Amino acid sequence: MRFLFLGDVMGRSGRDAVSERLPGLIAEHGFDFVVVNGENASHGKGLIENHYNALRDAGADIVTLGDHAFDQREALSYIEREPNLIRPLNYPPGTPGRGAMLVESRKGHRVLVVNALGRVFMPPIDDPFRAVEAAIADCPLGEVADAVIVDFHTEATSEIQAMGHYLDGRATLVVGTHTHIPTADHRVLKGGTGFMADAGMCGDFDSIIGTDTDEPLNRFLTGIPGGRFTPSEGEATLCGVAVETDPVTGLCAKIAPLRIGGVLAQVIPDF
Amino acid sequence: MRFLFLGDVMGRSGRDAVSERLPGLIAEHGFDFVVVNGENASHGKGLIENHYNALRDAGADIVTLGDHAFDQREALSYIEREPNLIRPLNYPPGTPGRGAMLVESRKGHRVLVVNALGRVFMPPIDDPFRAVEAAIADCPLGEVADAVIVDFHTEATSEIQAMGHYLDGRATLVVGTHTHIPTADHRVLKGGTGFMADAGMCGDFDSIIGTDTDEPLNRFLTGIPGGRFTPSEGEATLCGVAVETDPVTGLCAKIAPLRIGGVLAQVIPDF
Amino acid sequence: MRFLFLGDVMGRSGRDAVSERLPGLIAEHGFDFVVVNGENASHGKGLIENHYNALRDAGADIVTLGDHAFDQREALSYIEREPNLIRPLNYPPGTPGRGAMLVESRKGHRVLVVNALGRVFMPPIDDPFRAVEAAIADCPLGEVADAVIVDFHTEATSEIQAMGHYLDGRATLVVGTHTHIPTADHRVLKGGTGFMADAGMCGDFDSIIGTDTDEPLNRFLTGIPGGRFTPSEGEATLCGVAVETDPVTGLCAKIAPLRIGGVLAQVIPDF
Amino acid sequence: MRFLFLGDVMGRSGRDAVSERLPGLIAEHGFDFVVVNGENASHGKGLIENHYNALRDAGADIVTLGDHAFDQREALSYIEREPNLIRPLNYPPGTPGRGAMLVESRKGHRVLVVNALGRVFMPPIDDPFRAVEAAIADCPLGEVADAVIVDFHTEATSEIQAMGHYLDGRATLVVGTHTHIPTADHRVLKGGTGFMADAGMCGDFDSIIGTDTDEPLNRFLTGIPGGRFTPSEGEATLCGVAVETDPVTGLCAKIAPLRIGGVLAQVIPDF
Ligand SMILES: [Fe+2]
Ligand SMILES: [Fe+2]
Ligand SMILES: [Fe+2]
Ligand SMILES: [Fe+2]
Ligand SMILES: [Fe+2]
Ligand SMILES: [Fe+2]
Ligand SMILES: [Fe+2]
Ligand SMILES: [Fe+2]
Repeated sequence: MRFLFLGDVMGRSGRDAVSERLPGLIAEHGFDFVVVNGENASHGKGLIENHYNALRDAGADIVTLGDHAFDQREALSYIEREPNLIRPLNYPPGTPGRGAMLVESRKGHRVLVVNALGRVFMPPIDDPFRAVEAAIADCPLGEVADAVIVDFHTEATSEIQAMGHYLDGRATLVVGTHTHIPTADHRVLKGGTGFMADAGMCGDFDSIIGTDTDEPLNRFLTGIPGGRFTPSEGEATLCGVAVETDPVTGLCAKIAPLRIGGVLAQVIPDF
Repeated sequence: MRFLFLGDVMGRSGRDAVSERLPGLIAEHGFDFVVVNGENASHGKGLIENHYNALRDAGADIVTLGDHAFDQREALSYIEREPNLIRPLNYPPGTPGRGAMLVESRKGHRVLVVNALGRVFMPPIDDPFRAVEAAIADCPLGEVADAVIVDFHTEATSEIQAMGHYLDGRATLVVGTHTHIPTADHRVLKGGTGFMADAGMCGDFDSIIGTDTDEPLNRFLTGIPGGRFTPSEGEATLCGVAVETDPVTGLCAKIAPLRIGGVLAQVIPDF
Repeated sequence: MRFLFLGDVMGRSGRDAVSERLPGLIAEHGFDFVVVNGENASHGKGLIENHYNALRDAGADIVTLGDHAFDQREALSYIEREPNLIRPLNYPPGTPGRGAMLVESRKGHRVLVVNALGRVFMPPIDDPFRAVEAAIADCPLGEVADAVIVDFHTEATSEIQAMGHYLDGRATLVVGTHTHIPTADHRVLKGGTGFMADAGMCGDFDSIIGTDTDEPLNRFLTGIPGGRFTPSEGEATLCGVAVETDPVTGLCAKIAPLRIGGVLAQVIPDF
Repeated sequence: MRFLFLGDVMGRSGRDAVSERLPGLIAEHGFDFVVVNGENASHGKGLIENHYNALRDAGADIVTLGDHAFDQREALSYIEREPNLIRPLNYPPGTPGRGAMLVESRKGHRVLVVNALGRVFMPPIDDPFRAVEAAIADCPLGEVADAVIVDFHTEATSEIQAMGHYLDGRATLVVGTHTHIPTADHRVLKGGTGFMADAGMCGDFDSIIGTDTDEPLNRFLTGIPGGRFTPSEGEATLCGVAVETDPVTGLCAKIAPLRIGGVLAQVIPDF
């Protein structure tokens, strides 16, 4: 099977790009499954139900979240009735929603998607390694799951690489989100797991991590808040990574970055 | 002119890759100038004089540093007699060495190289924006300098992007180092400055940011140190970015990533 | 001379305690000079002009600030016309207001007050050690100034202790603010400088650092914001430290904590 | 019953003070139980078995630890055979040793001691609130335990206060350790729990948090390591807090700080 993962959708510009381009990409490349990180889709902070539905309508099978998961408080309630929306699984027990989900792809493949939060340079949260381990142990790749996709929402390059090695041979893809800048280190690890330290955002890169440049730059220069952060509204680059699985093992046979639209250099998977 | 910037050289593996490949790259692409970040060249921590000389012998015109600048204490003394070694300029006044240097390239172009440390998720240090501003004001691009190269050693993607926008139109290249993973966002900003959030390391990527996987992974899993960090010794990927300047303005006419050797996908500039 | 320093005034409860008790304390103990840290006086965040005036009316000769200095944006303008309001002096050049002030006490003593921000576990800012050094060099104790009071707004106990030792023999008092909890380590250092790692807040201690307990506790337990932080409105404890100077050297002859009102154990200086 | 808690023992100076003074204090005040935090007893980092035995010989019934728990690696093994040594209970499952212990006092009271690590401004670790909750649920105060003592090893004043309120009415004492400076906020909370944000260290206060002043100050001033940290060897102040329990409820009837020796103002409980 062939699937696509798209990184943090940032504001209206990111949502529009997903709505306009994702259906065509699915058709063109024959993606059987799509995961989209939606933690910044609503005004840069969280995800309201309308925007969740828009991502789903565009073709997202699973929408993942991150440290902004519940910035829009309505997510605390509608996540309970939306099995295809997952939030980091290392929130404390009792947190609304689920952190991992096994779903069927269009063509009937069983795909496990796991979302977790890193801890280096991030707010305190439970151990992501143990949490992901447990989620994967429940649905072993090649036995219960035809593919295992881990969205590890991390700031530090050390932590995402540690997770890649930790899961190598046991997941199809370990991909980072959260830094909003795509990395150029996509590859298949020794044990067969696809890896990319950050998928990059779906947003306007003529910005500071998707936010209009003026206010963040003002804060760097003066140390004094001067206003709000607003998502940048120029044309978004859709950033993500495509994977073709090995039909026997479920591991990663091919991995390729995808960057379409906006100001970044364009890259399309050749499969 | 055409120049090359290489990111953090990591241990023996990184040094060997520079020594073996850099001379050929210079010849092939006609690079008139080369900057190499050497902050991790000696056992992953700092830079002894022998290793500095090896980087220079391989073709580095300027060697830059970072938060590990003085981990090898001999750097505090030999930096005083080596004008082509620079350390972050936002260390306090009185710190040995210089943070910016205007030098002549092989073909007689005057190149200003500036090295600065970021502050987000990093140890306290003086304001890098004001410090870089002052260094550039002394040697304006297109007047005193034919090219201005800024190595901004940063953890946070927001801070490196802020510096890119801040200097847009006033520097030839603003490039990040320190995360050890190359980003895929190389481009020319609106004002003509070349930008890439992180050049990536020159080191073995089958590792955790250049370090043998076992001990960092052990710490993530247990929270308890179990030994030392040692640089990974597999074949390095040389990671960097090449730029062709506009001969009139000194701004960035072309920018392209370079990744050769090791386990990352290979990319060579087509100029 | 004898002076009093009061720590972070927190919200209405803290302001009321200052207004009600400070005039009496000044009369009783014969304080010739009073410094009050006002960074949290307005709803827990910053200081509006009305509240500044109330602190002054109660007897504050100088009002200091901290990391919340400009949370109430009007402080950016009225600070320019209020020489008795100072903000941390290690904000970047160009920041409105001053970071140090030499003023005359009621009885004609010249008192230098300096306010600085720490950097450990705090937002990036310029070097406080160099900044305080320069401010003190301008007004040496025992020559230009009859007393030098340094309010070092710090999170880490290591940083405030480092400043104490750094200035030992050159300042009358080095006192910390910001943690909102008074420390029990007031003493005269070897060189004659009075020291206390944190003066404590003027606020309701039946709280979490002056804030109503529910929302901060909710965030510790769930990791998810559930509402705003609001200053706790129970009776405040006035927290501070009193100093008697050596009339010849200007150093600290006596130092004693003061804690009046509210739920903390009561302590009154015996001088 | 009456018990004593002593904060972080720092190096030889701290150990000597415990050995010399603790036996007399126990005799004088009739302490039925003593807890000592030993995380810095061995050269400032961790606790070797010899030093653990010395603390026990001096009268410590339970020795607690902190973020330096396993800096001396032998602690990973001898902790397994020493039930009276506990380490933070929110280390991951599988960590050697226990994080909570129910023991009998000299006079036959059952005392539960719990040790946990905070997460604000500290390395990532599992949720301390949930962990402490579970430990206390197993041994409810007034039913299974005659006293419950919680050593919460924390940097941030907000986090220790949150734990105090969280356990109010369910623990006899919630006391902080780790900052190495005693706080002056000891009191009985509304629900009957004794509280003190930090017990302070048992070490030489003419120092920077127990370390010789020169090297930490050098790092603050230059940003460049110049040598090792060594525990300061002047006379230690023994810092701690004494509690008298309510014989019926097990809650805190009286709480008083204790500071003896060294350069801090001396305080002795009057019970
Ligand atoms: Fe994001
Ligand atoms: Fe995020
Ligand atoms: Fe590096
Ligand atoms: Fe670095
Ligand atoms: Fe404050
Ligand atoms: Fe503050
Ligand atoms: Fe400690
Ligand atoms: Fe500690």
